[in-house]
Amino acid sequence: MELKAIVPFKRRGAKSRLKRLLTLEEREELALMMLNDVLTALSKSMIDEIEILATSGGFAVEEIEIGAMEVKYDERGLNEALNTAISGQEQPILIIMADIPLVTPDSINEMINRNEDVIVSPGRRGGTNALLLRKPSLFSVSYYGLSCIEHLERAALCNMSCGVHDSFFMSVDIDEIEDLVELLIHGKNTYSARYLNDLGLHLHADKESKRRVEVVR
Amino acid sequence: MELKAIVPFKRRGAKSRLKRLLTLEEREELALMMLNDVLTALSKSMIDEIEILATSGGFAVEEIEIGAMEVKYDERGLNEALNTAISGQEQPILIIMADIPLVTPDSINEMINRNEDVIVSPGRRGGTNALLLRKPSLFSVSYYGLSCIEHLERAALCNMSCGVHDSFFMSVDIDEIEDLVELLIHGKNTYSARYLNDLGLHLHADKESKRRVEVVR
Repeated sequence: MELKAIVPFKRRGAKSRLKRLLTLEEREELALMMLNDVLTALSKSMIDEIEILATSGGFAVEEIEIGAMEVKYDERGLNEALNTAISGQEQPILIIMADIPLVTPDSINEMINRNEDVIVSPGRRGGTNALLLRKPSLFSVSYYGLSCIEHLERAALCNMSCGVHDSFFMSVDIDEIEDLVELLIHGKNTYSARYLNDLGLHLHADKESKRRVEVVR
Repeated sequence: MELKAIVPFKRRGAKSRLKRLLTLEEREELALMMLNDVLTALSKSMIDEIEILATSGGFAVEEIEIGAMEVKYDERGLNEALNTAISGQEQPILIIMADIPLVTPDSINEMINRNEDVIVSPGRRGGTNALLLRKPSLFSVSYYGLSCIEHLERAALCNMSCGVHDSFFMSVDIDEIEDLVELLIHGKNTYSARYLNDLGLHLHADKESKRRVEVVR
């Protein structure tokens, strides 16, 4: 059966919590670079079809560097836009966030190869960074807050089997400045880490003092 | 070939960064509960032999609730104690931290089933939460700071193949109060989360306000 990925993407005003280090323009560009990283991983995985769900304007498909895909626009909130997108869909769907640039094709394939009806790949603090739905038309998503637990509970309520996918690289969503540390440590071959390097951002570590590793510009 | 795990463990004065929520005695007890969780996962994995490397006193093997294992004492620093422990060892060794209570047997087995000489399972901020060494006698460890990168570089310098193991549950080491959030969200069946619940710690989330999930007591 064909397997489709939906990638919600918000460019306009993206990543406001990075504003101590990056200008608005740079943050919007970083969001686009991260989207390119996620699309690259998807295009190397078993996913057959990719749809970008643009939840803010200011974005054209020509800006994407990766293969062929569909772009839909829906400027409502994330939950409303996604629930409309999956309603009536009979094929399995992977909903995957656009701000997890470290995600690997292997990890996506591992999710796909599991057997449960609903599979959650958690982010830090209870988020859901990827969500595989075998029967999307029978489910509705609820992002924000402890969505990871909520998605598992909804699956149980619908008598669907569910599981948690264990991936560090999927768990790293880039929201805060400390998340950039992970991107610079592990993202050597990503568009987004190269973009940060081009802007002059780098890691600062002092092994002797046992202080935390930081990102500086 | 027999496969051995070494678990460095420091009880005395453990987890000082949790002191806003937990007393010294509670933190030391939490450290012991987390050790029990790691030992449980190891005992359900393909690991044949478990050694606890106690790097502080105040700890007796009778306090461990899981199976048979060896305890060695070495009160020097982590690197010195570990490098002594692995020198001259010809069998493969998994060094695994005692403060990653969410670790699963599946994830340990996945590490073991890989082919590289050196496999690093990263923690946040560049740490190394588990390290599999096929030829421990030819390697030396270097924890603290960006040890994840340093271990990969050392492997390359020694002409050993190396890889990164992608596990969220291994990446969650419990150092800071915000790490307890992960333990309470995902650790339902762990000794350590049950201990925190018994102390009255719980999650506080307010979905409407989009504020972060917090741990309160």
